[in-house]
Amino acid sequence: MARVTCPVLGRRIATAEEAAAHIRPGDSVGISGFTGAGFPKAVPQALARRIGEAHARGEEFRIGLWSGASTGPSVDGALAEVHGLDKRLPYSSDPALRRLINSGEVDYVDAHLSHSAQQAWFGFYGPLDVAVVEVAAILPNGLLVPGTSVGNNKTWLDRAEKVILEVNRWLPRDLEGFHDVYYGAAVPPHRIPIQLTHPLQRIGDPYLRVDPAKVVAVVETDAPDRNSPLDAPDDSSRAMAELLVDFLRHEVRAGRMPPGLLPLQSGVGSTPNAVMEGLLHAEFEGLTSFTEVIQDGLLDLLDAGKLASLSATSFGLSPAGQQRFLDNVGSYKGRILLRSQEISNHPELVRRLGVIAINGMIEADVYGNVNSSHVMGSAIMNGIGGSGDFARNAYLNFFVSDSLAKGGLISSIVPMVSHVDHTEHDVHVLITEQGLADLRGLSPSDRADRVIAHCAHPDYRDRLRDYVDRARAARPEARHTPHLLEEALGWHAAYLRDGRM
Amino acid sequence: MARVTCPVLGRRIATAEEAAAHIRPGDSVGISGFTGAGFPKAVPQALARRIGEAHARGEEFRIGLWSGASTGPSVDGALAEVHGLDKRLPYSSDPALRRLINSGEVDYVDAHLSHSAQQAWFGFYGPLDVAVVEVAAILPNGLLVPGTSVGNNKTWLDRAEKVILEVNRWLPRDLEGFHDVYYGAAVPPHRIPIQLTHPLQRIGDPYLRVDPAKVVAVVETDAPDRNSPLDAPDDSSRAMAELLVDFLRHEVRAGRMPPGLLPLQSGVGSTPNAVMEGLLHAEFEGLTSFTEVIQDGLLDLLDAGKLASLSATSFGLSPAGQQRFLDNVGSYKGRILLRSQEISNHPELVRRLGVIAINGMIEADVYGNVNSSHVMGSAIMNGIGGSGDFARNAYLNFFVSDSLAKGGLISSIVPMVSHVDHTEHDVHVLITEQGLADLRGLSPSDRADRVIAHCAHPDYRDRLRDYVDRARAARPEARHTPHLLEEALGWHAAYLRDGRM
Ligand SMILES: CC(C)(COP(=O)(O)OP(=O)(O)OC[C@H]1O[C@@H](n2cnc3c(N)ncnc32)[C@H](O)[C@@H]1OP(=O)(O)O)[C@@H](O)C(=O)NCCC(=O)NCCS
Ligand SMILES: CC(C)(COP(=O)(O)OP(=O)(O)OC[C@H]1O[C@@H](n2cnc3c(N)ncnc32)[C@H](O)[C@@H]1OP(=O)(O)O)[C@@H](O)C(=O)NCCC(=O)NCCS
Repeated sequence: MARVTCPVLGRRIATAEEAAAHIRPGDSVGISGFTGAGFPKAVPQALARRIGEAHARGEEFRIGLWSGASTGPSVDGALAEVHGLDKRLPYSSDPALRRLINSGEVDYVDAHLSHSAQQAWFGFYGPLDVAVVEVAAILPNGLLVPGTSVGNNKTWLDRAEKVILEVNRWLPRDLEGFHDVYYGAAVPPHRIPIQLTHPLQRIGDPYLRVDPAKVVAVVETDAPDRNSPLDAPDDSSRAMAELLVDFLRHEVRAGRMPPGLLPLQSGVGSTPNAVMEGLLHAEFEGLTSFTEVIQDGLLDLLDAGKLASLSATSFGLSPAGQQRFLDNVGSYKGRILLRSQEISNHPELVRRLGVIAINGMIEADVYGNVNSSHVMGSAIMNGIGGSGDFARNAYLNFFVSDSLAKGGLISSIVPMVSHVDHTEHDVHVLITEQGLADLRGLSPSDRADRVIAHCAHPDYRDRLRDYVDRARAARPEARHTPHLLEEALGWHAAYLRDGRM
Repeated sequence: MARVTCPVLGRRIATAEEAAAHIRPGDSVGISGFTGAGFPKAVPQALARRIGEAHARGEEFRIGLWSGASTGPSVDGALAEVHGLDKRLPYSSDPALRRLINSGEVDYVDAHLSHSAQQAWFGFYGPLDVAVVEVAAILPNGLLVPGTSVGNNKTWLDRAEKVILEVNRWLPRDLEGFHDVYYGAAVPPHRIPIQLTHPLQRIGDPYLRVDPAKVVAVVETDAPDRNSPLDAPDDSSRAMAELLVDFLRHEVRAGRMPPGLLPLQSGVGSTPNAVMEGLLHAEFEGLTSFTEVIQDGLLDLLDAGKLASLSATSFGLSPAGQQRFLDNVGSYKGRILLRSQEISNHPELVRRLGVIAINGMIEADVYGNVNSSHVMGSAIMNGIGGSGDFARNAYLNFFVSDSLAKGGLISSIVPMVSHVDHTEHDVHVLITEQGLADLRGLSPSDRADRVIAHCAHPDYRDRLRDYVDRARAARPEARHTPHLLEEALGWHAAYLRDGRM
C-alpha cells in the first residue's frame, strides 16, 4: 500500500540529498524524535554528509538543532561527528554530542520538555527555518499519520518556514489511531483550559496537519527506530522497585492513594522499568499511566491486563519490546495514546491527574535537593528532560538511584549536590537500594537525618552524619539547613582530584 | 450593624481566652493570614499567654502552626517569644520566629504556596486539629464574609476538626463582594479543569463555608492588620524598574508581548513596587494583574485607570495604602478579587494566563540559578513563598536585586549560589541596578558572560570573569557549566570568615 497518497505532496517526493539541500548554514532545524523513536532516518545523514563536504572545502556550516528529546546516532551522532551543530535543544542523550557540549563547542539549552514548544511559540529561540518530521503516511487530503513519537512535531510543522517530511515504510501503517494531537494550544492571552480529565481521553486529532505550500520535499525511507537493549533488572533495581511498590501499598492503606493508584509516570532506565515489573506481580488493578515514554514494563502491564490506559509522547522500547509491539499493533490500539510533549508533560494535567512520578537521578544531598543532569557540577549527562514537569506537579514523586556510583568511588548521597535540578521543595521520596526516605512535611534538618539513615550507603553514612553534626555545631544561629561551605562540595572536589570521594 | 447575624453561631460567642482553651499541646493549628493581612488578632495572643503560663508551670506546650503565609508580630512573634511552636509552615517572615527556626528550635517546612493546601488535603502534614480564621462577618445563613486575605482559609475550615472564628469589626463590612472562593477543588482522581481564563473571572463564591457543628468559638475583635511602611523607591529600585519597563516595551515592539502586556505578578518589596510606579508613568493601558499580594503600586495603577483588573489572595499595603483602600472600598469593588492561594498561585492558571512574574532574590549565580531564601546557604530569610509557582509557569519572569548587599561586602552575583530555589531552567531575566541580563534560550556558558557583563557590580566583575575563565580552562572536558568546586562557594565562606566576599 502506498504511504504517500496525497496528490499534491506526492509531487514533492525527493531524495534525502535533494531534501537536505534545502537546509542552509546557520539554519535552525526542528526535527522529530523522542527517546530514539520517530526521528528522521535519512535527511540528517544526508545533511551530515553535506556539512562534512562543506567543511572539507573550508566552508562554515553549522546549524541549530531542535528536537522533541533524544534522537539516534544517525542524527545527533552523525551531526556531532562532522561538527555540524552550534546549538541544541531541549534534550539529548547522545554520547558523541555530549562530548562536544562538554567541550564547549555546542551550546546546549537544557529545558523542561513541557516548555520547549511554548518557548518556540513565544519567540524565545528565534525563527525556525526548517522542520524535518518523520511520519507513517500522508493521507489523500494531506493529513499526516504520525509515527512512534509526537514530541514537538506539531509545533515544528506549524512554526517552520520550510517542511521536509520523511515517510517511513518500516513504521506500521496501523499506527493510524494511536495519536491525539491537541490543536487547542494558543499563546497567552488566548489560552483556554485543556479539557482532559483522564489519561486516555481524546482532546485532539489523530493526525498532524501541515500547510502543503511549505513542504519542500517528501523523502521515502524504510529504517527502524533506535532501540536500546534493556538491562535485566539487577538486584539493586529490584530492591528499589520493591521498596517503591511497598510504599504505594502503604499509602493505599493509609488512605492517601486510591486502590488503583493514580496515573504512573516513569522515567527511562532500568529501575523505573523494574518498578513496572514489580507492579506486574503486585495486587493493584486498573492502573493507568500518564507518562512521557513507553518502556517495556508498561507493555507488560498492558498485556497482563493490569494497566487500563496509557498516555505518552513516545515509545522507548527494547528490541524485544519493539518486536512485541509491531507484532501486536492492533491489540494496543485504543489502550495507548501518543500526545505532543507539551500535553504529555503539561503542568496543568500532571497536577490535575495527580501523577505518581518515578525518575532516576545522578545524586541527592542530605537535604533532598536532586541533581538529574550534571556530573561533578559541570559536565552534562543528558539534561533535565521531563523530570521537572512531573516532579514539581506530581501528587507524589520518587527519585531513585543506587547509593553508590563508579564502583563505590562515588556516593550518590552527598552533603550538597554539585548542581540542583529539583529543589528540596519538590522532592517527596528518595530511594536507593539501601532504603526509602519519605521526606514529605519535614524540615531540612529532619530530612538530613532520614536521608542519611535510610538512603546512604553504610560506607559513607558516618561521614555524612559527621558532616551534618559539625555543620549544626559550627553555626548554631544557622541551623535551618546546616552546611559547612568550605566542605560542602569537598567530596566532589576530592573525586576530581583523587578519583574517589 | 452586628457582624454576627447567624443565630446558631451567635451562641458560640466567647472570649479569646475561652477560645484558646480549645487548643491543646501538640495540636496542629491552621490560621488565616497572608502578608500581614487577615490574621486572627486575639486568639493567638491568648494562646501565647496560655502557653507561657503552662511553661511557667513546667508543662510542655507547643503547637504546629499552618498559615497562608506571613502573619504579624502578635501571631508568629508572640508564639515565638513563648517558645510555643515546634513546626511552622508554609511561609513566615517574622524576625523572632526566624531566629528560632535558624537556631534549630522550630521545624520550618518551607513550601510552594500553591502546594500547601493540596498537601494538607493529601494528608502529607497529618491531621489538622483546629482552625482559627478571621472573617469580616457571619451572615444569617452561617456563610462567612472573608477578610483582607483568603490564603488557605477554605482548606483550614474544611479540614480542621474544630473551628474558631474571629470576627473583626475593624475590617470594612463592605469587603463582601471582594472574594471569589473556588469550591471546585478536589483530590485526584476527581479533579476537573479550572475554568478561569481572565484574572477577574468569578469561578467561585463570595463566601467561605463552615460546618457550624465544628465551630467551638466565635470571638469578636476590633484590631488592624499589620502594615509595613513602604520605603520610597531609592535610585537603585528606580533604575531596576526602568530597565524592566523598558524591556517590556522592547518585547512589545518585538511582537513577543501584546500592547496591554500580560497579567502582572509582583513580589513584595520596594523594587517590585517601583516597577508598578514605573508602569504608572509608562504608555501601557488596560493592564491586568494576577498576583499574590496587592501592594500600594497596584492601587496606584487602579486609581489611575491603567490597571483594569486585579486578582490576588491578599493585601499587603502600607499604612497610607491601607487608609486609601479603607476610605474608598466601594470604588475598588468589581476591580479586585481575592482568591484562595491555591488559585492565585495555581500553575495551571499562571501558565494559561501567561503571567509576567517579578520577584526579589537574595543572590543569583553567573549561570542564572537563583537563591530566594537562604543567607549563606544555611540561614532561612523568609522562604520560597510563591516565587516558584510564578517563575516556573510564567510567560516571562524577572528576578531583581541590588548587585551588592551589606554595604558592598557581599556581591549578589556569585560564582555559585549557596542555595538553589529556582534553577537555571526557570530563570528568564536577571536585573540589578547595573543592568539587565536576558537569559532566554542561552546555554549556561553564554549566560555567565551576560550575567557578569550586565548584572554584576563593577567591583566584583573581574573576579567573576576570572572565576569562569579559570573554570573553563581547568576542565576542558566539562565546560557545559564551568565550575571550580574548591572555590565555587569560597566567596560565601570568605564572608563568614572575614566579613566580606
Ligand atoms: C539521572 C540519569 C542520568 C540516571 O540514569 P540511569 O540510567 O538510571 O543511571 P546510571 O546509573 O546508568 O547512570 C548514568 C551515568 O551517570 C553516572 N552517574 C550516576 N550517578 C553518578 C554520580 N552520583 N556521580 C557521577 N556520575 C554518576 C553513571 O556512572 C553513568 O555514567 P557512565 O555512563 O559514564 O557510566 C537519568 O535518569 C537522566 O538522564 N535523568 C534526567 C532526565 C529524566 O529524568 N528523564 C525522565 C523524565 S521523563
Ligand atoms: C529575597 C527577598 C528576601 C528579598 O527581599 P527584599 O526586601 O527585596 O531585599 P532586601 O535587600 O531588603 O534584603 C532582605 C534581607 O536579605 C539580606 N540580603 C540581601 N541580599 C543578600 C545576599 N546576597 N547575601 C546575604 N544577605 C542578603 C539583606 O541584607 C536583608 O537582610 P537584613 O534585613 O538583615 O538587612 C524577598 O524577596 C523574599 O523573601 N523572597 C522570597 C519569597 C518571594 O519571592 N515572595 C514573592 C513571591 S509571590
